[in-house]
Amino acid sequence: MATKAKKNNITFRPHFKTHQSAEIGGWFKESGISGIAVSSVQMASYFAKAGWNDILIAFPVNVLEVETINTLARNIKLHLLLESVESAKFLADHVKYQTGIYIKIDTGYFRTGIPYHEYGKIAKIIHILQDAYHLTFTGILTHAGHAYYASSVSEIHDIHNQSTGRLLEIKRRLNEVYSECQVSIGDTPTCSVATDFNSVDEIRPGNFIFYDVMQHYLGTCSTDQIAVAVACPIVARHKSRNEIVIYGGGIHLSKEFIHDKFNRKIFGLIVDIDSQGWTEPLKDAYVSNISQEHGIIRTTSKHFDRYTIGNSIGILPVHSCYTANLMSHYVTTGQKVISKFRFTS
Amino acid sequence: MATKAKKNNITFRPHFKTHQSAEIGGWFKESGISGIAVSSVQMASYFAKAGWNDILIAFPVNVLEVETINTLARNIKLHLLLESVESAKFLADHVKYQTGIYIKIDTGYFRTGIPYHEYGKIAKIIHILQDAYHLTFTGILTHAGHAYYASSVSEIHDIHNQSTGRLLEIKRRLNEVYSECQVSIGDTPTCSVATDFNSVDEIRPGNFIFYDVMQHYLGTCSTDQIAVAVACPIVARHKSRNEIVIYGGGIHLSKEFIHDKFNRKIFGLIVDIDSQGWTEPLKDAYVSNISQEHGIIRTTSKHFDRYTIGNSIGILPVHSCYTANLMSHYVTTGQKVISKFRFTS
Repeated sequence: MATKAKKNNITFRPHFKTHQSAEIGGWFKESGISGIAVSSVQMASYFAKAGWNDILIAFPVNVLEVETINTLARNIKLHLLLESVESAKFLADHVKYQTGIYIKIDTGYFRTGIPYHEYGKIAKIIHILQDAYHLTFTGILTHAGHAYYASSVSEIHDIHNQSTGRLLEIKRRLNEVYSECQVSIGDTPTCSVATDFNSVDEIRPGNFIFYDVMQHYLGTCSTDQIAVAVACPIVARHKSRNEIVIYGGGIHLSKEFIHDKFNRKIFGLIVDIDSQGWTEPLKDAYVSNISQEHGIIRTTSKHFDRYTIGNSIGILPVHSCYTANLMSHYVTTGQKVISKFRFTS
Repeated sequence: MATKAKKNNITFRPHFKTHQSAEIGGWFKESGISGIAVSSVQMASYFAKAGWNDILIAFPVNVLEVETINTLARNIKLHLLLESVESAKFLADHVKYQTGIYIKIDTGYFRTGIPYHEYGKIAKIIHILQDAYHLTFTGILTHAGHAYYASSVSEIHDIHNQSTGRLLEIKRRLNEVYSECQVSIGDTPTCSVATDFNSVDEIRPGNFIFYDVMQHYLGTCSTDQIAVAVACPIVARHKSRNEIVIYGGGIHLSKEFIHDKFNRKIFGLIVDIDSQGWTEPLKDAYVSNISQEHGIIRTTSKHFDRYTIGNSIGILPVHSCYTANLMSHYVTTGQKVISKFRFTS
């Protein structure tokens, strides 16, 4: 992803919410990355402590956390996300140190952001920022999350083109009020498949660090690009229904699932795993159900006997962001333990 | 639940996997409870450290953890769950201190356990236990998880009666080989609605400590019995679609949902919340969608303006076990902070 960004002459601001690890963050530093995105004020504090000093909190600003925001803004180059006049006014009144502001634009996902055609509202927020002593308008930003619902790679391309097109049209219009507007996009599907970034300034993908089964089904990664797996002990076998029970449930893997082409619910793919790594997904097995601590592997009578109690099997997660979030650390294929951030309520 | 157990002259062994808190556990101690159930070896260690010395790890034993199991068995009255001859033999060979064994029976949930009609297999495991110096057969146990799929309270009663009937029939037959077989059942729906426990010896419900939206829809609790809520800050408002965005997503609430009678997906109910407690669920709002950090509240144009950025709203979780698992602590309505266990991978 770093190479792709460099080739297209755009800034690469990776989202760290997937791995949430200072040590993995270090691998990005080695690739020349200096700015990152995170999904909470708490996660920003964690990475600031780990030495990052250009951090975007890519979530509509939670004004209740203004105190920690000020602590961060005093110490690093902080960027926040705005999508309302109310929050803009609040930050203008309460932020005490230089802070960059991105305005969140909704280009068609319909979750958060100002609808792309509401120039008036965008301009109004920019005017508030221009009058605020400690706030600087950095640019406009979107997350084309609807790319996750695409049914083909060509549809992802279409979403990418439409989404960036809408942002660039805003930039063109905004040039009248603000000429240095940065355009930032950031989802793994479009950033993975795109070859042409249509003059955007910055990309912020995050999931690609591990990818997962969902991305594979979307067509944005191959199975050998999935870089994280959970080793789950086999605890029971039910030959009459060709099911294996693993110690690995919703509190470990999350309950994210996809439907495969046979309309079966898939909660994870199965790999053989050892301390050195893992195989390609096994063809005749998948995680067919999940409850709090239990995972159920459905296999065939022919393959049933390869699963024995006391062995562990690897699960490629459906959505690695959720699975990694539930874990307290990683172990590399070189048996190195890697710590990570953990959200505290 | 303690009163109900006492009245029916049965042992109450509450499952602590829902609250996972030593301090909340203390409230049970005050009610005269001495034995508990947990869902992992790690959680057993946490509660052993908190002074509990009669703990059942109510999950098919993970033989890879035999070392910690031995540490626990040396120090407390430990009970494990078995459902296979392989694991029975393994424990017979490796457990070094007195340990009680429950055999897991499948009475119709089809997830784990020995099918209720396979007496031969059950007897075979009991014989292994009788020959093992450190293992004692305690009894048979089920989790009638299919009660969660019931469409009425009367159906929950039917499942309860069928499930306990199947266990008691096993006990009757086992009397030939083992006369002191305990019968243990343990799910919140059946234990909540049952008035007659059909001579079972022990109940192990857990979720009832908090209940949740799912239990309410099942008909096993009223909304004012739901005893946990997540306070979520409002971060954005979208008037054109009557949607409010909260800082509260799948990594905080989990992505558990239920379908209401209009077939809408409900990811949580909304309450007004302050430091003293919360109201009944608001009628014209619900959590309609959820992503990693975002929750979307759908409301009506009439009620839209009651939601303002910077205020917090309470969310009653769909499945409190998952939500509590994602949190690091609780705050009581008396503003006391209560710590809890957190799973470490």
